[in-house]
Amino acid sequence: MSLRWHLDAGEIERESFRIIEGECPELAAALPPEHWRVARRLIHTTADVRIADTLVFRHDPVAAGLAALRRGAFIFCDSKMLRSGLSLEKLRRLCPDYGPDRLLCHISDPDVAERARAEGLTRALCSAEKALPVLDGGIVLIGNAPLALARIARAILDDGLRPALVIGMPVGFVNVVEAKELLAACPVPQIVLEGRRGGSATAVTSLHAIMESA
Amino acid sequence: MSLRWHLDAGEIERESFRIIEGECPELAAALPPEHWRVARRLIHTTADVRIADTLVFRHDPVAAGLAALRRGAFIFCDSKMLRSGLSLEKLRRLCPDYGPDRLLCHISDPDVAERARAEGLTRALCSAEKALPVLDGGIVLIGNAPLALARIARAILDDGLRPALVIGMPVGFVNVVEAKELLAACPVPQIVLEGRRGGSATAVTSLHAIMESA
Repeated sequence: MSLRWHLDAGEIERESFRIIEGECPELAAALPPEHWRVARRLIHTTADVRIADTLVFRHDPVAAGLAALRRGAFIFCDSKMLRSGLSLEKLRRLCPDYGPDRLLCHISDPDVAERARAEGLTRALCSAEKALPVLDGGIVLIGNAPLALARIARAILDDGLRPALVIGMPVGFVNVVEAKELLAACPVPQIVLEGRRGGSATAVTSLHAIMESA
Repeated sequence: MSLRWHLDAGEIERESFRIIEGECPELAAALPPEHWRVARRLIHTTADVRIADTLVFRHDPVAAGLAALRRGAFIFCDSKMLRSGLSLEKLRRLCPDYGPDRLLCHISDPDVAERARAEGLTRALCSAEKALPVLDGGIVLIGNAPLALARIARAILDDGLRPALVIGMPVGFVNVVEAKELLAACPVPQIVLEGRRGGSATAVTSLHAIMESA
């Protein structure tokens, strides 16, 4: 195949989805359509069909996420990279007055950095704690930091916090599997990549994929 | 293993690197130290040891990248997500007056969007073309858009453009393998993930890993 220069973004996406469907027919047939759309977009974003092997949906997350997006819910972002990947244009299709002030990312807030330094904690953990008061009914996107996810899971289990949706995709070798196990015990709608894998791009694309079921 | 709450970022990174070294002793032994640092950080970022199977270095990219970073070179970013993942703090360790104005990302510029729409091209391709005049001696980071990479490779091959370093890690199913093949023919320092895989986080972490060899 030689390079095709004259394609627009829509054509590239449609062609990519055709390739993915051709390579994963069993997966496409086995999943409900709203879950397949998430799996397909995760495969598209990672270019790795194995990513779908660890994808788990609990407590009807697509419907819950759509309802929250239509309400204009706060979205907690565990990293600046994740926040910058979210499309305001897409968010406004479901909630026309959605503003960037609803994308919460406290990771670089001076008070968060100072507390993390003083107490020997991660900034991610402190940033999650700072957001807890507004996360009832909110959407939680974790693509990096397991302790941010674990802190929110503890608030769900111990204090009755009820986010509308948690996308739990921290990545790495320390605390990651354990944080995902804690989330699994939480009675809230959730989409998870089990095991070590995840990433900001996987969390972002999962939320965007939910919107395809609107 | 239970969750370990009281770890700071440095402790988590050191523990992660110990785990990776324990799981990949052959790879650690086979690569020169400056390449192993890149491989290790890519595994750390993706939590996938297989990512190293496709990692290729050509034309001494670590030394070339370090020299460019010390000069305060422009860094072309193919996405906002990639740009927001770069650490100004780390960049300033090599070039104390490095400023955010040197992180070039034209993907949302109105003229780029307008041209892409009018000509049926991707915004990524048009954004790369806009940056070409300043990329001699610059660093090119591609974590998403194969046609941005292909356009820059054509300028290298046809017009004598000489970036100091290209990190070529577009991801996906259309034009991605072909763009990486074009880059392979370019006589410039480069780090590539061959095949379909890549991503903004892999490109960012590769540049950060180069700095570990300073």
